Amino acid sequence: MLTLFGNLESGNVHKVQAILYRIEVAYRRVDVVQAAGHPRTEKFLALNPMGKVPAVRLDDGDVITESGALLYWFGRGTELWPADERARTEVLRWMCFEQYSHEPALAVMRYLRHFAPASEDNDRRVRELAPRAHQALHVMNARLASSAFLAADSCTLADLALYPYTRWSDQAGIDLTAYEHVRRWLERVEAQPRFLAPGVEGATEVVSFDDYFE
Amino acid sequence: MLTLFGNLESGNVHKVQAILYRIEVAYRRVDVVQAAGHPRTEKFLALNPMGKVPAVRLDDGDVITESGALLYWFGRGTELWPADERARTEVLRWMCFEQYSHEPALAVMRYLRHFAPASEDNDRRVRELAPRAHQALHVMNARLASSAFLAADSCTLADLALYPYTRWSDQAGIDLTAYEHVRRWLERVEAQPRFLAPGVEGATEVVSFDDYFE
Repeated sequence: MLTLFGNLESGNVHKVQAILYRIEVAYRRVDVVQAAGHPRTEKFLALNPMGKVPAVRLDDGDVITESGALLYWFGRGTELWPADERARTEVLRWMCFEQYSHEPALAVMRYLRHFAPASEDNDRRVRELAPRAHQALHVMNARLASSAFLAADSCTLADLALYPYTRWSDQAGIDLTAYEHVRRWLERVEAQPRFLAPGVEGATEVVSFDDYFE
Repeated sequence: MLTLFGNLESGNVHKVQAILYRIEVAYRRVDVVQAAGHPRTEKFLALNPMGKVPAVRLDDGDVITESGALLYWFGRGTELWPADERARTEVLRWMCFEQYSHEPALAVMRYLRHFAPASEDNDRRVRELAPRAHQALHVMNARLASSAFLAADSCTLADLALYPYTRWSDQAGIDLTAYEHVRRWLERVEAQPRFLAPGVEGATEVVSFDDYFE
């Protein structure tokens, strides 16, 4: 059985849960907790030297990491990875946008507003990041004014990639009221077959970090 | 003829120059200058609403943006995008690593150290980013201790993606002496056929921003 390393609070982990649930592949989840420092332990670094979740151990023992790579690996052969090469390129374009222009603003603001203790430094970081977050949402909103999904007419891996941290905007202190097309798009993603909501367990079994690595 | 929008100082633009030069596709370059605010002008935003370089206009008028998507589009069908799906996933993994964990540290430090006027705020940002930059180089160095290239035994799109901002480490104030395997890898990338050095013009024609958009 596949093993997914990550926790339910991570949007990057959610992307992998979402694709595995969608393609109906059973997996167990090892609860790697950032707040407990798990990703930086020697045991975890032996598995993923990049020191991040998500990571997936395949049945042959191989390990794949980085949410974008995992979406590709599991999404190939589904309609979420279109056959047309130009459409594929557009999927990758929006996945790059997510990693570089969206996630570093929205996910970090969410961490600072929702998980980290309040501090002057954190307030300053939030003020610095807010324009970038709104810029990313503005770009998405403009695109979604004329397209049901980000990279193509139908739902693709790009939509799964952009979904979780956009859905969690409220936890980042961001109001989506002004982003009407983004809000409607969130609902369209949620109406997809075998949609798994963020924060919901998709694994058939959960193993604690200590139990797995002991 | 293809049109590439970007400038020679950008590593993200270099990636596209590198792949176009490698596959021997002629193109003209429109000199989009970040310091002049070009990417945020209405004219450029009509071309790329994400407001960033590189962007490429294809012969059919279609526009592709994001360096990772452009590497994929032009690299398909070459040995830089391996046939094996597991190897492809590994290429994407390192390209995600570049966009999320490498470029935001090394490229921003380079900007702050090499292009921006000195200020206390910039010094603070450099101090915050330096550990992330060294962490990224450490991860690369460890991988390259046992592999000639990052994602596979041979050079792939991942190596082109990681190359420019690693090569420009000195401009970011980062000393590569301790990263022996990274230094040797830089030389291996430079020994590839039809290698284009960063900062070198690969276009057959250069058009100024104002001339193109007037």
